[in-house]
Amino acid sequence: MDAHEQIAKLSGLDFSGLHQDDFLLTWDKTEDEIRAVLAVADALRALREQNTSCRIFDSGLGISLFRDNSTRTRFSYASACNFLGLEEQVFDEGKSQVAHGETVMETANMISFMADVIGIRDDMYIGKGHTYMKDFSEYVQMGYEQGVLEQRPTLVSLQCDIDHPTQSTADLLHLIHTFGSLENLKGKKLAMTWAYSPSYGKPLSVPQGMIGLMSRFGMDIVLAHPEGYDVMQEPMDVATKYAGETGGSFRITHDMTDAFDGADIVCPKSWAPFAAMQERTDLYGNGDTEGIKALEKRLLAQNAEHKDWTTTEELMKSTKDGKGLYMHPLPADITDISCQEGEVDASVFDRYRVPMYQQASNKPYAIAAMIFLQKVQDPIAKLHDLAAGKAAPRWQH
Amino acid sequence: MDAHEQIAKLSGLDFSGLHQDDFLLTWDKTEDEIRAVLAVADALRALREQNTSCRIFDSGLGISLFRDNSTRTRFSYASACNFLGLEEQVFDEGKSQVAHGETVMETANMISFMADVIGIRDDMYIGKGHTYMKDFSEYVQMGYEQGVLEQRPTLVSLQCDIDHPTQSTADLLHLIHTFGSLENLKGKKLAMTWAYSPSYGKPLSVPQGMIGLMSRFGMDIVLAHPEGYDVMQEPMDVATKYAGETGGSFRITHDMTDAFDGADIVCPKSWAPFAAMQERTDLYGNGDTEGIKALEKRLLAQNAEHKDWTTTEELMKSTKDGKGLYMHPLPADITDISCQEGEVDASVFDRYRVPMYQQASNKPYAIAAMIFLQKVQDPIAKLHDLAAGKAAPRWQH
Amino acid sequence: MDAHEQIAKLSGLDFSGLHQDDFLLTWDKTEDEIRAVLAVADALRALREQNTSCRIFDSGLGISLFRDNSTRTRFSYASACNFLGLEEQVFDEGKSQVAHGETVMETANMISFMADVIGIRDDMYIGKGHTYMKDFSEYVQMGYEQGVLEQRPTLVSLQCDIDHPTQSTADLLHLIHTFGSLENLKGKKLAMTWAYSPSYGKPLSVPQGMIGLMSRFGMDIVLAHPEGYDVMQEPMDVATKYAGETGGSFRITHDMTDAFDGADIVCPKSWAPFAAMQERTDLYGNGDTEGIKALEKRLLAQNAEHKDWTTTEELMKSTKDGKGLYMHPLPADITDISCQEGEVDASVFDRYRVPMYQQASNKPYAIAAMIFLQKVQDPIAKLHDLAAGKAAPRWQH
Repeated sequence: MDAHEQIAKLSGLDFSGLHQDDFLLTWDKTEDEIRAVLAVADALRALREQNTSCRIFDSGLGISLFRDNSTRTRFSYASACNFLGLEEQVFDEGKSQVAHGETVMETANMISFMADVIGIRDDMYIGKGHTYMKDFSEYVQMGYEQGVLEQRPTLVSLQCDIDHPTQSTADLLHLIHTFGSLENLKGKKLAMTWAYSPSYGKPLSVPQGMIGLMSRFGMDIVLAHPEGYDVMQEPMDVATKYAGETGGSFRITHDMTDAFDGADIVCPKSWAPFAAMQERTDLYGNGDTEGIKALEKRLLAQNAEHKDWTTTEELMKSTKDGKGLYMHPLPADITDISCQEGEVDASVFDRYRVPMYQQASNKPYAIAAMIFLQKVQDPIAKLHDLAAGKAAPRWQH
Repeated sequence: MDAHEQIAKLSGLDFSGLHQDDFLLTWDKTEDEIRAVLAVADALRALREQNTSCRIFDSGLGISLFRDNSTRTRFSYASACNFLGLEEQVFDEGKSQVAHGETVMETANMISFMADVIGIRDDMYIGKGHTYMKDFSEYVQMGYEQGVLEQRPTLVSLQCDIDHPTQSTADLLHLIHTFGSLENLKGKKLAMTWAYSPSYGKPLSVPQGMIGLMSRFGMDIVLAHPEGYDVMQEPMDVATKYAGETGGSFRITHDMTDAFDGADIVCPKSWAPFAAMQERTDLYGNGDTEGIKALEKRLLAQNAEHKDWTTTEELMKSTKDGKGLYMHPLPADITDISCQEGEVDASVFDRYRVPMYQQASNKPYAIAAMIFLQKVQDPIAKLHDLAAGKAAPRWQH
Repeated sequence: MDAHEQIAKLSGLDFSGLHQDDFLLTWDKTEDEIRAVLAVADALRALREQNTSCRIFDSGLGISLFRDNSTRTRFSYASACNFLGLEEQVFDEGKSQVAHGETVMETANMISFMADVIGIRDDMYIGKGHTYMKDFSEYVQMGYEQGVLEQRPTLVSLQCDIDHPTQSTADLLHLIHTFGSLENLKGKKLAMTWAYSPSYGKPLSVPQGMIGLMSRFGMDIVLAHPEGYDVMQEPMDVATKYAGETGGSFRITHDMTDAFDGADIVCPKSWAPFAAMQERTDLYGNGDTEGIKALEKRLLAQNAEHKDWTTTEELMKSTKDGKGLYMHPLPADITDISCQEGEVDASVFDRYRVPMYQQASNKPYAIAAMIFLQKVQDPIAKLHDLAAGKAAPRWQH
């Protein structure tokens, strides 16, 4: 990868709206802004590969607030912060006083005295995660205006109930690297399909984020799932709108073979029905333990009716020239490996293992690009300086 | 805020005693030393606001050792360390009264090989917290002299059983900012009063730290609490002595209205009776679970007899011109918000919310100032260098 | 300590094999490589003592992966990383024998996107720890070759089932400092002996690491333990081979007085019988909780038969001139202090407390040396630059 080539892609784009703003939903961003994130991600990757330190911060904190488990996103966020000069500070709500009656407003300000960036994952409860981030953002803005905070920390969503922007951006980078350019994606068929998993309640934000972002570049998007496994309405509306505007298409099918047929790209992954997740959120809200158990049982039984929704070698043969790109955000439920019957056959998974790791490896750079564009006033000039070797080496090897 | 103006305040003060020493109790420090901490805190704040990196360390560790929960103090400490160039390392020992398996001497040395600063919170057990810090200090001094430790890490108390110096210093900065100067505090009436909370066992170190520090600047301090809610003798003696020396006063009342009457500043906050906390310490020491439960029950019942000790709008009207400054170290027990009946009415709390957040925002700078003065041999010269723009920008925005 | 003197020791040594390689077992390394680690450790210590920043990284991550508890090794690793410019990131996987949900291959890559070094402790299960590290190493090598990882992170074993190289290296540094030089160790008698502890299952890697490394410098090594407390075969074979090659000796005795008799150095420490640990690994593998409890009971009873294996003042008198050096990796089970009957008398322990702390203080430098030699292409030139004051001060005091 070449840094200069990536920086060149930025000229002519208007991405000023990213500066000092949060990154919560990709569909809140203009196409220029998305293109800027993609180019900067690859530019930062190139700079790191040529051993250039990209510390735009001499000190500063990147707070992480994970309200759900995470390995790769967490390490990606920590990596991005470190690469830009920020120290990660984990806000662990379990061990802190937050459980004991602090409002979000208070928390937002109390952990942000020297925070430049705040990464939040809050994906478990429908109707809550994105709202929490919006509230958080409003409160740090207030704190900044009132002189409580010296700087206005910007937010990066590390997955909410609606979108998973750092994942979909990393995935889009993978498609660009695989197919050569964003332009080459035009007309490609992408199947975002449900797949069987013996666990339940996997977040909706992955398929939603996928259709919300990939529909913007002229692809033919097919969302496939058994009846009853609908996703939220908003990202479907977004996908319909964007597909129409960019000469692509967006449709829904309840037939996995239909989705795979001739697809250039397939993303088979389990998720929970939207309605059930909404029900679960209410049950948790009411502390209804019995209801939660009953729901879990019902959902597992419902899942088990669709064990045929799995990524077999045969299905893969039906993709474009039998060589469609298989993607997964990981970790996957692999048949005979991590479970008896799961999302994908072991031989399919194995064949795409290295590409999937490469896919995942884009995430730190996607996050770093978002932060860079939020924080640097003239990103083109700053990247030119870095590429020209005006910065220190990252590593004196 | 202006850095040069703050640095100017340092001239003529003798604060050499802070260098290479610990910061455990404010009343162990001279008035000059306290004044130096205040000026340096505001100078560092000004430097950060003008985007100056204050990394006096290129590498180094700031250990934190929290033997009780914390959110704002913990993030304040991490922020201060990061701002000065130290990476925070958490030593998680659990909250047990006695460290398991390793003596304090061993722990103190084993975690300090590359520690420049150690921040400790140990506030739960009467007679233990401050003693633990003194022991810890002695042992790292020994380790330094014996060549075990290359540097002598200095300690910052992040709250002990007796004092809470980073809190009271942040509070004093808030008063300076609110009333214009330290000199303007002379003759002001400050009411440090108990308030009802439905929880029990809140630390004594907050009121103790308050009367121990605020009495040094000519204020009229009133400590108010129901009978039986006495604090420790030492800080009361300190307050009496300092008040006498600085033309202020210190008295105790058991009448909340008496305390509020005409007060310029009110700090209503719950705490546990000293005698009960001593009893609890013994019960924990003996592993007497039944005794602890019985004590808790007794204390909650005792608290409940004083629900009238709460900060109402009516009480606030009795303060100076009805506009007395309400303060709280947060989080507060707010009536109808975080509990049914608590320390303060929601409308009072809301009116002072932003000032309280500003109050809290002083803490990272208070801690950074303590570390700076412990570690830098010629703080005035170093601050002048920083203010003159000889350092890197903190953030290349 | 003098940096130049240490750097001079490197000339003539061939330690190029360390570059870009892992450090898992000391006996996989050549004598030149071991000598290089020792010299660089002391050089880095000297540089820090003269306040030189040794940040060879402007940014980067040092991942730590502890599958067993740790205090001193963990802080040593974090200290070493920080000193070289790496931020520690903890990967908390739990202590389970098998990582849940993700294969080692996936984990290895997902946490290494920006990892320069990975420190792993995995010492609980015989036949597993070292294997885990080898697998991990293979997988990050694959990730590097496939473009998943921009750099090839190198591994440092922080204790496996076979060896504890950072401990034994720190111990060897202690012997060099105590006896004046590596050469002075020739002909010295070192007794690595078992000692009674009221707990069970202490790792074998400490005695194994000790005999595997100390046998390389012409010492007379005696491994002493009650019958049935054998260690693994591999390190015994290593010790026999190296002792033969360097003019020293290695033998086993079941008599503690025999081992102590005339010893220059004694290391009495509890460990578990190899066969029992193997049995335990199988029991854990089968989830046999009853079997584990039964084994524990049997082992504690077996231990209790050997309470006479304890380090008394009388035994110490039998060492060379009654002044043999007592060593322990800490924490020790001290009779009448941390337990009723343990590994060592309190008076013996107290007399050697400061030397043991000094012994422990070598560990951060040992780890830093391993990382330095793995990461820097021309260590001699780089150290000369650092010693010549071409780097920033670590601390602007």
